[in-house]
Amino acid sequence: MKTGGEIPGSKDKILFTPGPLTISRTTKQAMLRDLGSRDSEFISVVKEIRTKLVELACASTADYTTIVMQGSGTFGLEAVISSTTPPNGRFLVIINGTYGKRLAKIAAVLKIETLTLECPENQTPDIDRIRQTLKDNPGITNVAVVHCETTTGIVNPIKEIGQIVADAGARYFVDAMSSFGAMAVDVNDCKIDYLVSSANKCIEGVPGFSFVIAKTGSLTETEGYARSMSFDLLDQYRGLEKNGQFRFTPPTHALAAFRQALAELKAEGGVEGRGARYKKNYRTLVDGMRKMGFTEYLKAEDQGYIITSFLYPDDPNFRFGDFYEKLNEKDFVIYPGKVSDADCFRIGSIGRIFESDVGALLAAIKETIEEMGVTLK
Amino acid sequence: MKTGGEIPGSKDKILFTPGPLTISRTTKQAMLRDLGSRDSEFISVVKEIRTKLVELACASTADYTTIVMQGSGTFGLEAVISSTTPPNGRFLVIINGTYGKRLAKIAAVLKIETLTLECPENQTPDIDRIRQTLKDNPGITNVAVVHCETTTGIVNPIKEIGQIVADAGARYFVDAMSSFGAMAVDVNDCKIDYLVSSANKCIEGVPGFSFVIAKTGSLTETEGYARSMSFDLLDQYRGLEKNGQFRFTPPTHALAAFRQALAELKAEGGVEGRGARYKKNYRTLVDGMRKMGFTEYLKAEDQGYIITSFLYPDDPNFRFGDFYEKLNEKDFVIYPGKVSDADCFRIGSIGRIFESDVGALLAAIKETIEEMGVTLK
Repeated sequence: MKTGGEIPGSKDKILFTPGPLTISRTTKQAMLRDLGSRDSEFISVVKEIRTKLVELACASTADYTTIVMQGSGTFGLEAVISSTTPPNGRFLVIINGTYGKRLAKIAAVLKIETLTLECPENQTPDIDRIRQTLKDNPGITNVAVVHCETTTGIVNPIKEIGQIVADAGARYFVDAMSSFGAMAVDVNDCKIDYLVSSANKCIEGVPGFSFVIAKTGSLTETEGYARSMSFDLLDQYRGLEKNGQFRFTPPTHALAAFRQALAELKAEGGVEGRGARYKKNYRTLVDGMRKMGFTEYLKAEDQGYIITSFLYPDDPNFRFGDFYEKLNEKDFVIYPGKVSDADCFRIGSIGRIFESDVGALLAAIKETIEEMGVTLK
Repeated sequence: MKTGGEIPGSKDKILFTPGPLTISRTTKQAMLRDLGSRDSEFISVVKEIRTKLVELACASTADYTTIVMQGSGTFGLEAVISSTTPPNGRFLVIINGTYGKRLAKIAAVLKIETLTLECPENQTPDIDRIRQTLKDNPGITNVAVVHCETTTGIVNPIKEIGQIVADAGARYFVDAMSSFGAMAVDVNDCKIDYLVSSANKCIEGVPGFSFVIAKTGSLTETEGYARSMSFDLLDQYRGLEKNGQFRFTPPTHALAAFRQALAELKAEGGVEGRGARYKKNYRTLVDGMRKMGFTEYLKAEDQGYIITSFLYPDDPNFRFGDFYEKLNEKDFVIYPGKVSDADCFRIGSIGRIFESDVGALLAAIKETIEEMGVTLK
């Protein structure tokens, strides 16, 4: 039951996932070249990307810098944790979802002393509890939180937390993987020392690297902290500063695509313009889903416009595996849930998708629900 | 003085480097799609790649497996060292160049007890000395060597070393970064436990990941060894085996390109066919360079056909920076030297380049030498 035509493979599926995403044709076309990784043209691509990312974080290159790190987003997170926590440091992670838990797990594998402050997945963390935890544990050197928890789509109060962390004299690390580029983040205002995001999220590049936007003064104090050669953030920074080159082979094609993606972000009106389109996608999605009888997992006030968790319908005819496959056959890719205390699936609003695509997805969901004989209340 | 036409950027430079390389247009075009990283089509791409790489190493999937690791080649090397050396293991690295030194440095940062056996950069390691070192140090658990040292282009005797390592009961790790795909390697015959290479070398893919071809029985004995979450090779393997998916976002476009690159490798006659083309490139290069009066750094019998180090001409008019820039302006990218005891530059024979390209490079070198007023003896 393919709606995309009779020829197999004739049309790509639309990805309503947290990434890799559907991205623009022009961004992918920027990969149709082979640049030498130590050649001047490539060096200027990297320089442009590093500068523009600092600007996107509302900062100046006088205070902040960008370190591009090869590999997935998780590699960037591990690079920050392993390179910026002092040898005898104590790491506090504020957790309300899988990605917060992952930060704590990375630190545990690295044998870093780690404290966690957990709260339910459908709640934002309690600010007073964070303040109290920092007061009760004076040796905490580094604090981390996820901006938009992709587990649920909840958005955490990074500015309020940043102020408390600064007051405690600790370094502040924000995992802005799924939000950066479509939600405004002012790293100065939020007192962020390290922010990590990935090429294949809201900036709509292809996967292959993550990036760390770092307060230069904090980064340069981390001499000797690195627990890995590949993930040595300070060494990677120094290499890029010295001659604009990477220490180890960079994903040249993915970086060329990213430069194009940044130009397209600007053309769309920057973070504000992109955020506006994603918000429209989100509103169209939620309105349509509610109309069919679906319910979101989160309260509306905690819900971001990046990704939305929907509860399974209360009908034994609903089996997520079938639902996923039937949508897939119709060329729509959605995402399984990850919430621990409720059965959910997730639909992303990000990537090069528009209201019309969300409308098409809604129509396919309606058709699928009917095929499955699922009744929604 | 551009030979590529008057319009800037109208022609891509040819890369005579160790990678990223000039690769085929069709391989790059395979990136013009967005595949979902958890979607069945992408899962089948990954499965095909993992199987074909084992076959390329002359092995069976009954005994060997492939683990794809996000990031550059160095990331794959660190993943093997950090994941397969036991907690109290001793690591021996056989060194005759920069890349051997890098393996030792990775281990040192990871605080792994590391012994090195160094020999001059223009010599292959002495087999008896390796045997003696293993006899004198009975606690050595892991031994590593570089197959083709990109520093010079020297090729090390991985089979002879493998036998000694097996006799000593240690695990054997071969860094085949710049050779795999164009030089025959039989992992069984060489008694290799772990072999690492990268997407953007002789298989002619785009950079974005490395891969580890591992003896499954050795890998599954490494439970609890991992010193990093991102680089946990056993966990990455288990994830790929469980459902064909990566634990963390894979470079989907680079992997799609790699599938195409593997098909093109097969069409060229596999390792033998590709090796034959590279050998022709190498022969044409060396013959032409000698004719002009250049001399190789290595003795011919130690020299592989992957990359060649040439000594600077003995003329004060030769300045490498100028030489490089002038060739670059003519759209040819060569590589600086890395040998510690002699002034060299390097020229690669790998990538989607042919004898005619080498001929064009030789003509450009001749022209450049004349422009610079350099006399060759």
